[in-house]
Amino acid sequence: MTLKISPLAPKSFPALPPLAGVEITTGACGLRYRDRTDVCIMMFAPGTAAAGVLTRSLTASAPVLWCREALKSGSARAVVVNSGNSNAFTGAAGTASVERTVAAVADLAACRKDEVFVASTGVIGEPLKDERLTSVLGELAKGFRPDAWADAAAAIMTTDTYPKGATRTAEIDGTPVTINGIAKGSGMIAPDMATMLSFIATDASLPASVLQALLADANERTFNSITVDGDTSTSDTVLLFATAKAGNREITALDDPALKGFQAALEDLLRDLAIQVVRDGEGASKFVTIDVSGAESPQAARRIALSIGNSPLVKTAVAGEDPNWGRIVMAVGKAGERADRDRLSISIGGIEVARDGWVVPGYDEAPVARHMKGQDIDIAVDVGVGDASARVWTCDLGHGYIDINADYRS
Amino acid sequence: MTLKISPLAPKSFPALPPLAGVEITTGACGLRYRDRTDVCIMMFAPGTAAAGVLTRSLTASAPVLWCREALKSGSARAVVVNSGNSNAFTGAAGTASVERTVAAVADLAACRKDEVFVASTGVIGEPLKDERLTSVLGELAKGFRPDAWADAAAAIMTTDTYPKGATRTAEIDGTPVTINGIAKGSGMIAPDMATMLSFIATDASLPASVLQALLADANERTFNSITVDGDTSTSDTVLLFATAKAGNREITALDDPALKGFQAALEDLLRDLAIQVVRDGEGASKFVTIDVSGAESPQAARRIALSIGNSPLVKTAVAGEDPNWGRIVMAVGKAGERADRDRLSISIGGIEVARDGWVVPGYDEAPVARHMKGQDIDIAVDVGVGDASARVWTCDLGHGYIDINADYRS
Repeated sequence: MTLKISPLAPKSFPALPPLAGVEITTGACGLRYRDRTDVCIMMFAPGTAAAGVLTRSLTASAPVLWCREALKSGSARAVVVNSGNSNAFTGAAGTASVERTVAAVADLAACRKDEVFVASTGVIGEPLKDERLTSVLGELAKGFRPDAWADAAAAIMTTDTYPKGATRTAEIDGTPVTINGIAKGSGMIAPDMATMLSFIATDASLPASVLQALLADANERTFNSITVDGDTSTSDTVLLFATAKAGNREITALDDPALKGFQAALEDLLRDLAIQVVRDGEGASKFVTIDVSGAESPQAARRIALSIGNSPLVKTAVAGEDPNWGRIVMAVGKAGERADRDRLSISIGGIEVARDGWVVPGYDEAPVARHMKGQDIDIAVDVGVGDASARVWTCDLGHGYIDINADYRS
Repeated sequence: MTLKISPLAPKSFPALPPLAGVEITTGACGLRYRDRTDVCIMMFAPGTAAAGVLTRSLTASAPVLWCREALKSGSARAVVVNSGNSNAFTGAAGTASVERTVAAVADLAACRKDEVFVASTGVIGEPLKDERLTSVLGELAKGFRPDAWADAAAAIMTTDTYPKGATRTAEIDGTPVTINGIAKGSGMIAPDMATMLSFIATDASLPASVLQALLADANERTFNSITVDGDTSTSDTVLLFATAKAGNREITALDDPALKGFQAALEDLLRDLAIQVVRDGEGASKFVTIDVSGAESPQAARRIALSIGNSPLVKTAVAGEDPNWGRIVMAVGKAGERADRDRLSISIGGIEVARDGWVVPGYDEAPVARHMKGQDIDIAVDVGVGDASARVWTCDLGHGYIDINADYRS
C-alpha cells in the first residue's frame, strides 16, 4: 500500500552535518521491500561510547536482547539497522540471525562483537533473511560516507510517511559539539517506548555512564511522553553514540556544570524527533499537545496526560473537531491518579472551558470549536491537588488509522 | 444520529417474568431525547436488600457518589434511572439535583432517602433538568407494573442499538427463586467498569452482606472482563436488589452450600448481560473471545487478556480480518505480566498458529483467515509460566467506531 505523506509532516528534512567519527552506508537488500533501501550501517571511530534505552516489552525482539547485553560494554564501533522485518518472535532462529549479522559486521569493523549494535523493524514472526544483508556487506562497505544521514533516515522507515532527523549544537567548556539524530516510527507508538527506533550520535567526548544517565533522563520527557495508539513495540530502541572527536575535556561527573548546554541540546533534539514521530502517527490529521498541571508528582501528571492522550474517545473527538471536554474529564478519572473533581479546570486552545469542576459560566463554545478545526490542538488540565506538571504529545484517531491498520500487515 | 442495530445483536429481547416485590414504571421526560422514554423507576417491597459495584473513576458522577453512600444502609425501596444526561462533572448543582430527585422519590415511596438509588447516563457536564422528572412523578407513579422489564431496558439506553436483558432461575434449599437483570452500555466500556448501568433484582431472601460479596465476586469475571475501548465511565453502576419474597430460608453465611445454585445463576446472568454489552460495542462487527492460560495468577491472566483486548492494533487487525498474530505477541509483551517468550503459544479459531515462541512449522494461514472472516473470533494464548487462566470479551475496532465517536456527543 502507498501511504500519503502525513498532513502534519515538516516541510523538509533538516540538513544534518557530517559528524567526526561517524560514517554511514545504506543499501537495498530486499529483506521485504522492493525498490527502496532497507539497511543502514553506521560505523564509529575507535573510542566511541554507547548508551541506550530499550523497550520494556516482555516479548522483546532478538535484536533488543542483543543490545541489552552489548550496552554493558559501554563502547560501540557499529550499528546495523534493517527495516521490513523486526526479527521479533522468531525464537532460536532469530537469535542465530542476530549473531551471524553481528559477527559479519564485527569482521568488517575489525572490532569485538559486543561493540556491534543491531536493530530491526517491520513484520513480526517471520525469519529474517540475514544472508541477504551479510552477503553484500563488502558492497555496502564501499558506500561509507560522512554525509549520509538523510539516506539513513530513509532506509529505516516502515509505515513512516517521511524520514525524521534533527541536529543540534552545544558547547562543552567552550568546545563546540554537534548532535545528530534520526528516528522512525508511526504506529505502535506508546511510551516504553513506541515501535520506534532512534539513533543519535555526537562528536562530544563523554563516558558511557554519563551518556546513559543523560539519555535515560531526557527520554522520560521526550520519547516516553508520546503516544499514538497506546501499543508498545517489541523492538523499541534508542541508541546514543559519542565519538569523542570534538576534543572537549571529558566530563565524568553528571553534575558538572559544563554539561548543562549539552544536556539541554540533547533533550531538545530528542523532543524534536519524538514530535516528528507523533506527527507521522498512522492516519493522523491533528497534532495534540496535552499539558497537565496541579498534580501530586511529575509521574502522576504524566500518567494523567497519557490517559487523556491514549483515550480512544478523546482522540476520536479530536478527529471529529468536537470540543468534547466531558471525555477529558472521563480520561482524568480513569488515570488512577489523585485529582480533585471539584477543583478540576480544563482549557482547550488556551480558552478556559471548565473551572472548579464545572463548565465555566456563560461558556461560549464557538471559539473553542474554531480551535478544534485547526491542525494543532492544545489541551490543558489542572487537577487541583499539587504543583507538578507534565506535557505529552499525541495525534487524533480517525478513519486514517483504521484504513492503515485494518488492511496493512506491518 | 440514528444508529443501525448492531450486526452482533441477539435475535430478540428475552421474556423477563414479573418478580414478586418489584414494580416498574417508565416515562418520556424530555431530559435530552425526543419521542422516546428516558426515565425508569423501580419500586421495591419493604425489606429489600441492596448491593452494588460502582466505577472506580476518580471523577465519578454525583449519582455514583450518592449510591456509594446509600449502599451503606444495605436496604432499598427504589431506584430511579435516567438516560440522556449523566449528571457528571456538574459540581454542586449536580449534587443538589440528585438530592431533589431522591427526596421526591422517597416521598413517593414513603421511605428513607438512603433507600433510594439513582443512576444517570448520557452527556457529561450539562446540568440535569431534574424538575422535568420530579414534576411528573405523580403521572409516572400511575404506570407501575410488574411486567415492564423490557420497557425499563429501553428507557435506559443511550448509544445502545438494542435493549439488554436476561433472566435466570435457581433454587435455594429447594425454594425456586428468579433473577432478572437489565443493562445498558456500548461505548466507554472498560473494566472498572464501562459506561454501563445494570440493574438486577431477585425475589430471593438474602442479606445485603451476602449479596454484596456474591456481586463483587461474579462482577470480576463478567462486567469487569469486558472492554470495548478501554475507556472508563464516570457513571458505571451495577445494583442488585433482593426482595425476599420467594420465601427461601435466609442464608447468612457466604459458604452455605445452599447458595451454590443461586451464585452460579447470578454469574451466568451477569455474563449474559456483559456479553450483550460487548455485542453492542460502538461500531462493532466482530465479537472476540480472548482466553489466556499458563499465567502466574488469574489477575495476571486477566491483565494479559485485557492488554490484547484493548490493543488498537489487535482490534483493527480483527476488523480487517487479518490473522496478525504478531500484534497479539506485542500485546502480551506490553501487559507487564510475566510471560515466557520462548514458550508462548497462540491459537486463533482453535488452530495453533504459534508454539514455543515461534510460528508453527508449515503454518497454513488459509483456515485461520477463514475463521477471521466469521463474526465470532476466538483468540487463545498460553504464556507458559503457570496454571492460571482468564477469559475476556471484546469487539473489533473499525470505521464504525470512528463514525460514531468522531461525530456524536454522547
